[in-house]
Amino acid sequence: MLKIGVIGYGYWGPNIVRNFNLVDGAKVAAVCDKNPNALARVRKNYPDIVTTSDSREIVTSPDIDIVTVITPVSTHYELAKAALLNDKHVFVEKPFTSTAAQAEELIDIAESKNLKIMVDHTFLFTSAVRKIKEIIEADVLGDLYYYDSTRVNLGLFQHDVNVIWDLSPHDFSIMDYLIKEKPVGVAASGRAHINSKEDIAYIMVYFPNSIIAHFNVNWLSPVKLRTTLIGGEKKMLVWNDLDSDEKIKVYDRGVDVTTKEGLYDLLVNYRSGDMWAPKVDQTEALRLETEYFLNCIKKDERPFNDGQAGLRVVRMLEACDESLRHDGKMVAI
Amino acid sequence: MLKIGVIGYGYWGPNIVRNFNLVDGAKVAAVCDKNPNALARVRKNYPDIVTTSDSREIVTSPDIDIVTVITPVSTHYELAKAALLNDKHVFVEKPFTSTAAQAEELIDIAESKNLKIMVDHTFLFTSAVRKIKEIIEADVLGDLYYYDSTRVNLGLFQHDVNVIWDLSPHDFSIMDYLIKEKPVGVAASGRAHINSKEDIAYIMVYFPNSIIAHFNVNWLSPVKLRTTLIGGEKKMLVWNDLDSDEKIKVYDRGVDVTTKEGLYDLLVNYRSGDMWAPKVDQTEALRLETEYFLNCIKKDERPFNDGQAGLRVVRMLEACDESLRHDGKMVAI
Amino acid sequence: MLKIGVIGYGYWGPNIVRNFNLVDGAKVAAVCDKNPNALARVRKNYPDIVTTSDSREIVTSPDIDIVTVITPVSTHYELAKAALLNDKHVFVEKPFTSTAAQAEELIDIAESKNLKIMVDHTFLFTSAVRKIKEIIEADVLGDLYYYDSTRVNLGLFQHDVNVIWDLSPHDFSIMDYLIKEKPVGVAASGRAHINSKEDIAYIMVYFPNSIIAHFNVNWLSPVKLRTTLIGGEKKMLVWNDLDSDEKIKVYDRGVDVTTKEGLYDLLVNYRSGDMWAPKVDQTEALRLETEYFLNCIKKDERPFNDGQAGLRVVRMLEACDESLRHDGKMVAI
Amino acid sequence: MLKIGVIGYGYWGPNIVRNFNLVDGAKVAAVCDKNPNALARVRKNYPDIVTTSDSREIVTSPDIDIVTVITPVSTHYELAKAALLNDKHVFVEKPFTSTAAQAEELIDIAESKNLKIMVDHTFLFTSAVRKIKEIIEADVLGDLYYYDSTRVNLGLFQHDVNVIWDLSPHDFSIMDYLIKEKPVGVAASGRAHINSKEDIAYIMVYFPNSIIAHFNVNWLSPVKLRTTLIGGEKKMLVWNDLDSDEKIKVYDRGVDVTTKEGLYDLLVNYRSGDMWAPKVDQTEALRLETEYFLNCIKKDERPFNDGQAGLRVVRMLEACDESLRHDGKMVAI
Repeated sequence: MLKIGVIGYGYWGPNIVRNFNLVDGAKVAAVCDKNPNALARVRKNYPDIVTTSDSREIVTSPDIDIVTVITPVSTHYELAKAALLNDKHVFVEKPFTSTAAQAEELIDIAESKNLKIMVDHTFLFTSAVRKIKEIIEADVLGDLYYYDSTRVNLGLFQHDVNVIWDLSPHDFSIMDYLIKEKPVGVAASGRAHINSKEDIAYIMVYFPNSIIAHFNVNWLSPVKLRTTLIGGEKKMLVWNDLDSDEKIKVYDRGVDVTTKEGLYDLLVNYRSGDMWAPKVDQTEALRLETEYFLNCIKKDERPFNDGQAGLRVVRMLEACDESLRHDGKMVAI
Repeated sequence: MLKIGVIGYGYWGPNIVRNFNLVDGAKVAAVCDKNPNALARVRKNYPDIVTTSDSREIVTSPDIDIVTVITPVSTHYELAKAALLNDKHVFVEKPFTSTAAQAEELIDIAESKNLKIMVDHTFLFTSAVRKIKEIIEADVLGDLYYYDSTRVNLGLFQHDVNVIWDLSPHDFSIMDYLIKEKPVGVAASGRAHINSKEDIAYIMVYFPNSIIAHFNVNWLSPVKLRTTLIGGEKKMLVWNDLDSDEKIKVYDRGVDVTTKEGLYDLLVNYRSGDMWAPKVDQTEALRLETEYFLNCIKKDERPFNDGQAGLRVVRMLEACDESLRHDGKMVAI
Repeated sequence: MLKIGVIGYGYWGPNIVRNFNLVDGAKVAAVCDKNPNALARVRKNYPDIVTTSDSREIVTSPDIDIVTVITPVSTHYELAKAALLNDKHVFVEKPFTSTAAQAEELIDIAESKNLKIMVDHTFLFTSAVRKIKEIIEADVLGDLYYYDSTRVNLGLFQHDVNVIWDLSPHDFSIMDYLIKEKPVGVAASGRAHINSKEDIAYIMVYFPNSIIAHFNVNWLSPVKLRTTLIGGEKKMLVWNDLDSDEKIKVYDRGVDVTTKEGLYDLLVNYRSGDMWAPKVDQTEALRLETEYFLNCIKKDERPFNDGQAGLRVVRMLEACDESLRHDGKMVAI
Repeated sequence: MLKIGVIGYGYWGPNIVRNFNLVDGAKVAAVCDKNPNALARVRKNYPDIVTTSDSREIVTSPDIDIVTVITPVSTHYELAKAALLNDKHVFVEKPFTSTAAQAEELIDIAESKNLKIMVDHTFLFTSAVRKIKEIIEADVLGDLYYYDSTRVNLGLFQHDVNVIWDLSPHDFSIMDYLIKEKPVGVAASGRAHINSKEDIAYIMVYFPNSIIAHFNVNWLSPVKLRTTLIGGEKKMLVWNDLDSDEKIKVYDRGVDVTTKEGLYDLLVNYRSGDMWAPKVDQTEALRLETEYFLNCIKKDERPFNDGQAGLRVVRMLEACDESLRHDGKMVAI
């Protein structure tokens, strides 16, 4: 039986507790939060779980095998480090850490002690993203042209991070998972209208080949949009995460280019064929993710969303911040 | 009776002829095109119109008062200049010219001879854009936060210009019309997948204040999108030009910020109220535009979409091209 | 403190327990279900609640003031009658009873003992329906022309009732609430494709004046639709319950009729104006409904969704069944 | 060269003239209309076409092979009869005639003289309907369960017919084309709010087997809807004619029924799979229809949308009117 200690029982924590508890061979043993009301809710719903307001009780408990860190990003490094140093596996909310240096240190500690780190990039376990991964790996789309995500809505304003650190970790982690090539540079522009943190931003991601990626993130949009377009040489895909019935549509549309001998001009032909919306099942992503993490620990396997995956995302977020400070100039990664 | 000579009878030319002919006190007298089939179509539909394959016959004809230049952008300067030097008013397809220098020269000639230049930014005459202008001028939205346009679809590939010169003149001219402040810088990133011209591009527009604008233009999208979000302090607007019934939606949504005395933290309150979709009438934009141009000539008034408006757009397009050549760095205007 | 006994803890029962427990001055004291797993779930979530598989323990308990009957419709009459005879107020799942005669008997018993009956027409407590009620009562729509509801989706097949008894109680109760005039006749046609109960049906409702109502209910639709059109002389309303953001749209559209003196022909003018989507708040309907019921009991007031409201719906359902048996002929009410 | 005489040059006539003129080996020779402005428009666009306000000139002209009757339905019988008696083939706007008796008489005359009648059920030549036909004939949907059409919008009010005669000929002809089985009965209910003709109506169509069809037609809807659901045992289809990109969607959804031995209860399993939107091309339906009619004449073949097809539709319209007069009772066909 693997025993789990959860630090942070705010918005996301209850989902973490519920899902880890559903996995066979696992059990949430203790929850820590500074807020007494949060702890009261834990005790009401889970009389067996120990509660505490002191995270040291979690990270040092001899009873606990895994520590999950579901707190604001600025606290991730310290909490995860304490847990690792006490020989706990760690499950950390996204984004992994506030700096790449912190992430690297955590990875080193974990490796030296053969402990697992998993970063909670939940979207990678959704049926939609797994289906898109399957489609791309089966070469349905052909060589990729672009990856274009719009992730906008009204709020929630965060006080400690800007809209890029809030919304684009989703896009960076999904892109990192779906596209084999790794980015070489990032550029970001934004504006802060309400307080000192950017509430609207546009991010360019450059690849060594002709793929180009772009994220539109905005806390001040009157409408909620969650739409990703992925263009390929053979087919093109639209993922609308807000469409409950037809999340993914694959279009047999595109451009075929032929060169006539002896002619300079390219001949461009437009292709327009059927559209296909694969069934996307409804399993809760976090349910799969928690089970996967526990399996990785049992089998001593490295999760694909490990510290390195978290580090790659943090590097791109850091590069965005640097670009923001320099009028949106491209920052190499 | 004002007599009009039309140069170029390809995709857009027939609309120009039809609409100028509908204006009282005006008449299309001659049409020029290199393509004999185009001229045959003119003669079939308009037996009274003189046809020619030589543009000099149009620009030098003593019978003609106004020359409309509806040809590829690379030919605009030469044709418009010839027309102006022969004392004709000119109506030029967008974008105005290939370079700002060309535009400036045409403006100078026209001013010295008191001739009118009008650049065909047709969108400014649509009911949708005129309604948005009205809403902004009535201060319904309050101070503007951002202007965000998505203009993507499959093709049509142009051989002489990239996707920026093809699609974003619409966005630049609409933004120039709607937003009082003038941009101070532009940045553009893109990629060419099919031939040597960019087929996908993202454009940032910087203003002296905190307004930020962004255009997403793409010739390789499986779906057609024409959506503009305009965020303001008081309300927010979504313009979906493909929605035949409810093109414009004004949302009473936003964020109110209050500061408590003695507290550092801002208090952010979310506002969510009614939505309102004003009636947008269906008059053909070009009908209004042609009539407006002829009125400007008769009353000796400068059209608001004059050479200067065309020049402002060309300057931003030139700056985009320069930014493209320098990894998307910001180019001052 | 009012004590509530809940009979039936299947799909809807847990919502009933949760919401009654949230009301000040009320408490769910006991839950009855035949299914031991259901009772185990009760005990896990609510250690204080007494559980039983014998409904008589609920209806005869001296500790209980209110009995809620959340069981299949065929059992409503017997359970509610037993509760009333034991001097309990009753809250009954829709549809109220299997026959009008049963409903009338329950109403009589309740009146003779001054007990309250409330039928769980939850939709009447949704923000959407309350907003539409407000709009109609403010005479925004003018005289009503028609009420047209489409309520279709795949399944769930019920074994004891047809699609009319499953889906159209919603429509009948909402229509009964919104439209002052009472129907004079009903007609229904349908077909049973899967088992012996109709899985698709169309219902006409006739009024003494020119209002006409129609419900399209279908268990075999590939897409889920929940759309109601309400046409009025002055304005028209569309309620799309699946649109999370803009559930209600009020259109300033319609037809104005004028008669020219001395002419037989009517002149019909079309009106097309703005559209307006009022904000619809998100309060849980059942939360309001349970609180309302307990207030009615405390203040000794008759709820508007009382036994009579339940009876009116059952009469229309019975008339539908009779019409189904006679080739869809109109059945007077 | 087949010469065509067109009677009626109102809303639809210009499309008829344009399309017949595009067919090789055919030519519109004369157009008749009572309205001098209509004739002026003909002469402006087609200087070669003879114009007249006297339909006898068309039907008796020795120069004319085919008469097209594009006038109000009340005049179809007389004009078509005169044309047939003068040995012309006839092309008649839908609905074919005002009564079944008239249609039968026209069919008899045409057969006795070996002349062709084609009724202009244009929808049968749209790419969407032809694709649906193909899907049904390939047994993709399996045995059909239902056919459910919604065809509503604001206006246009007709003075001579009710909404059923205006809108539902489309539905009756499409249903007649797509479904092999022939209806045995029809029922219709409606109301007239604006003048004495019904402006809203609901139509049931009964088949000998378990197929059921329903049409919702309405001149008083604030929104325009053109949606048809076709449910089958194997798959289900949604045709949204207003969706420019994805008109037809085929859903792999449904219900599978199994019976367990020794058990009375059916086991119902829900099936939910991929969705597929076949490409629907954009050819103008009337272009195909006119070409097809001329081919039928040349090859002496009977068109599938012949007088009999027109008669079947008129019979159902007549039955609807009778049902309207009897409280929506079912009328056998």
